[in-house]
Amino acid sequence: MSRPKILITNDDGIFAPGIRALWEAMSEIGDPIVIAPHTEQSAVGHAITLTDPLRVVSVQRSGGFEGLAVSGTPADCAKIAIKSILDQKPDLVISGINSGSNIGTNIIYSGTISAATEGTILGIPSIAISLDSYESDEYRGAKQAAIDVAQHVLNYGVPKGTLLNVNVPYCLPDEIKGVKITRQGNQYFKDEFDKRTDPRGRTYYWMKGNIVDKDESMDMDGKAVREKYISITPIHFNVTNESYMDELISQFPNE
Amino acid sequence: MSRPKILITNDDGIFAPGIRALWEAMSEIGDPIVIAPHTEQSAVGHAITLTDPLRVVSVQRSGGFEGLAVSGTPADCAKIAIKSILDQKPDLVISGINSGSNIGTNIIYSGTISAATEGTILGIPSIAISLDSYESDEYRGAKQAAIDVAQHVLNYGVPKGTLLNVNVPYCLPDEIKGVKITRQGNQYFKDEFDKRTDPRGRTYYWMKGNIVDKDESMDMDGKAVREKYISITPIHFNVTNESYMDELISQFPNE
Repeated sequence: MSRPKILITNDDGIFAPGIRALWEAMSEIGDPIVIAPHTEQSAVGHAITLTDPLRVVSVQRSGGFEGLAVSGTPADCAKIAIKSILDQKPDLVISGINSGSNIGTNIIYSGTISAATEGTILGIPSIAISLDSYESDEYRGAKQAAIDVAQHVLNYGVPKGTLLNVNVPYCLPDEIKGVKITRQGNQYFKDEFDKRTDPRGRTYYWMKGNIVDKDESMDMDGKAVREKYISITPIHFNVTNESYMDELISQFPNE
Repeated sequence: MSRPKILITNDDGIFAPGIRALWEAMSEIGDPIVIAPHTEQSAVGHAITLTDPLRVVSVQRSGGFEGLAVSGTPADCAKIAIKSILDQKPDLVISGINSGSNIGTNIIYSGTISAATEGTILGIPSIAISLDSYESDEYRGAKQAAIDVAQHVLNYGVPKGTLLNVNVPYCLPDEIKGVKITRQGNQYFKDEFDKRTDPRGRTYYWMKGNIVDKDESMDMDGKAVREKYISITPIHFNVTNESYMDELISQFPNE
């Protein structure tokens, strides 16, 4: 059996440590192809580039890592890779390893998830994987999680339109307690704006804030990661609020 | 009773014709406040600006239209308006009138919807409204729809975490057949990349493509609009695929 073709991308950019760790991990189970943003694209949400051309350049890093850097967003990378650059569809798209978790409400801002979403839309089983730390390069736990979940998806597949959002606790591999299949919880970023004046007397604002997570149920993504479990959340982009359809229809009786 | 405070934003930018039409419409039922991107922000998805400061400047247009232009995305505008600029929370956030529909899979790329989503996250009843035309400034039907749906939301409210995604067919007001409460359908953008060579011999790519919509059920957003109904879809950002939870849990028996 031929080795699976695994498309790797991310939102921290092709020179981030996390994508190298993911490339190392995927090299153990398949043939990875790296096509990722040239520069950091955090909090770009599901942006795509319509009004500018995309550039694609070859990048080599030490240790044999090579890939293509795209002058666009994570969603652009997945799209152009699958639709234009690759000769055949990959068997798997995996996005990460993101620096910082992608949990709760905040996932709507996530470039990491948007790349996996794009893979899903284009019919490829897809995974987003994030490490719950902004500072560390201790990727051993996350690498093993990437291998395990990727192998699982290659074996079992995922339903059409669904991707797996994986969040790995920040700790040594043998401190990880196991895997929890979770729901998107209620973690959010409580943001404020810091209003300042520049040297020319003009006002500007910085966004700042901190994460709030009050979820206490172990089936919630944030709680599972806090308790040192690998959290796997199956997510899809059918966003109709079905539970409200009947009430809303009853409010428009003349339709 | 005091007039409702209505925050207006969009993704086509503060100088777009659609936001003026929305401002005119909302002036009939409340006190509109316009806080919108300075420049066009189409297909930015749910991007927020973390690494650059935001600038806010005052804008006046003819006919008494005034507002604040923000050097950021639609989500930035809703966030900074509600968290920092406005003295009190608005009664309603309404984003649009977008030039072009926001339907099916494509809504994940929509800046128009991201602004309403941000309003929803911050606890304000929110609406996204789009006209199914990229060329026209015939906004009479869309203005009436904006008034009707806004008045409805001010009267009835919407469930926590849910916004209304409104799409208006492009036709004269008296050709609109009515309202359909719909689900997010399967319309998608079948994209390709046009590969070219610049005058210096370097490759670049343009994204291009066309919309595909095979939905034939009138409870789908795209079909309703094609049939000249105003489509109202209740959407939320709980993206857990509940229908797959049990199967996925059974695949990880040792968790």
